[in-house]
Amino acid sequence: MSLIVVGSMAFDSIETPFGKSDRIVGGAATYIAWSASNFVKPVKQISVVGGDFPDSELQLLADRGVELEGVQIKKDQKSFFWAGRYDMDMNSRETLETQFNVLGDFQPVVPESYAGSEFLMLGNLAPGVQHSVIKQLKKRPKLIVMDTMNFWMEIAMPELEEVLKDVDVLLVNDSEARQLSAQYSLVKAARKIMEMGPKYLVIKKGEHGALLFHGDQVFYAPALPLEDVFDPTGAGDTFAGGFIGHIARTRDISFENMKTAIIVGSAMASFCVEKFGTTRLREISKEEIEGRIRQFVELVNFDIELV
Amino acid sequence: MSLIVVGSMAFDSIETPFGKSDRIVGGAATYIAWSASNFVKPVKQISVVGGDFPDSELQLLADRGVELEGVQIKKDQKSFFWAGRYDMDMNSRETLETQFNVLGDFQPVVPESYAGSEFLMLGNLAPGVQHSVIKQLKKRPKLIVMDTMNFWMEIAMPELEEVLKDVDVLLVNDSEARQLSAQYSLVKAARKIMEMGPKYLVIKKGEHGALLFHGDQVFYAPALPLEDVFDPTGAGDTFAGGFIGHIARTRDISFENMKTAIIVGSAMASFCVEKFGTTRLREISKEEIEGRIRQFVELVNFDIELV
Repeated sequence: MSLIVVGSMAFDSIETPFGKSDRIVGGAATYIAWSASNFVKPVKQISVVGGDFPDSELQLLADRGVELEGVQIKKDQKSFFWAGRYDMDMNSRETLETQFNVLGDFQPVVPESYAGSEFLMLGNLAPGVQHSVIKQLKKRPKLIVMDTMNFWMEIAMPELEEVLKDVDVLLVNDSEARQLSAQYSLVKAARKIMEMGPKYLVIKKGEHGALLFHGDQVFYAPALPLEDVFDPTGAGDTFAGGFIGHIARTRDISFENMKTAIIVGSAMASFCVEKFGTTRLREISKEEIEGRIRQFVELVNFDIELV
Repeated sequence: MSLIVVGSMAFDSIETPFGKSDRIVGGAATYIAWSASNFVKPVKQISVVGGDFPDSELQLLADRGVELEGVQIKKDQKSFFWAGRYDMDMNSRETLETQFNVLGDFQPVVPESYAGSEFLMLGNLAPGVQHSVIKQLKKRPKLIVMDTMNFWMEIAMPELEEVLKDVDVLLVNDSEARQLSAQYSLVKAARKIMEMGPKYLVIKKGEHGALLFHGDQVFYAPALPLEDVFDPTGAGDTFAGGFIGHIARTRDISFENMKTAIIVGSAMASFCVEKFGTTRLREISKEEIEGRIRQFVELVNFDIELV
């Protein structure tokens, strides 16, 4: 059970109706690693950071079983930075500032020691960068899961279409699914996106749960109704980490097991939003994760006897 | 198993991105009756219509097992009329016209023959009118379920608060739950609303499913992802009809059985939106309902083995 994770490791400044963070550690691959490492070790990380990225953060990840050979450190440059603000409706956010910095010309290099990995999680990045990782792998992983966002649909659609042909599972949110497919109905959107390459599609709907599509099959996982969503930053990446983490742990890529992986991902995401940034993810225990997953079972479980 | 249904029987004119209806038969109690009568007979209807309401419509309902003794026919007046338009996002709608007509001074009278009914479904109406039905019943029903809407929160909040003290289950949508409780978090909203009277709260979220709250317990039923939502008019009432219909059929008012009732209601609502108005509800067979419920089981079913 070996997993490669590709994505940004970065700084975020976040405003929500509940407060404002300083410049804190974030980035898709950071959240994915914190989440996935609960289920599978090692996580083989591919990313790029600047000289401003704290060594202590890298050390904490290493202590947790995240291999960092594939993380380039560009001492004389700065890490990717994103600043954003959320409204009470935590499903939509406003970007206040984006500094690409080291991510602007990121050329990922897959270390020799990562060869033969069975699972690949492509966190949100320029589609060309995601594709270059796939192309460097001599043996195709058992499962390639990819996240992306509307931004790339707007500025890099041809590259996005190319990489989509080579992935097994695409993760997007509902508005991205609609944008990518030019279909309003999510059922029609899913059909169209699956024609673009991925055999599986996960549509994340934030507080409204997530849908998994495969052929004519569909699965709907609810989200746990939460008292407060404190900060949704990284929830999608944390979901992705739980999803691929469960699959890598079980080494089972069936539709049935992907359903379970979605529950695991949803449970992990429900922790993420409880505190700013990665704070909550650093604290959770195996027992808490099991408890949260049990809450999901309770949440959707019903008996039926037909009329 | 006897059920009283109270609500409007009316005309609607509907515009959706897919088309425009003529002036067609609608009204909360119409949808509830068409839906609930799949599960329980007779349905004892309480409503008011004008001389313009077609006899043939009343006859169709009577043929289906809906008792109409409690339906007042005011020959020289006109039925309630609503015209509205939906955007692609079928969760929100714009009211183009409302003519209260006979509903303006509706004084419901519970016929002697309805006495002793075990279940009461209060469809959306002025809270004072809903309350007058409860007050006329000599024996309190086993379960009183009530629907309402934002309109009454704006113009009749004191009356709404009064009737809420006397009902067991409240059905509202997510924005109404937020408005009624002045809480954004649905978990907090639910807690506050349950303090207002109802021991059970159902929050309907349209294409995002429905939540059931009771004390600290919560259940999340998904909505079936649909190819197209053709016309959402009456979906909430149809849901209510399936919900109360299942409970009245089984005569089981436990939380566990309410979960099942929500699935039944969701299944019924998923038919309603497939065609304009009540069209689809008039056609469905027992087999179709069973098939649809089975789809819900498939949709949410997953196996989990903890980490």
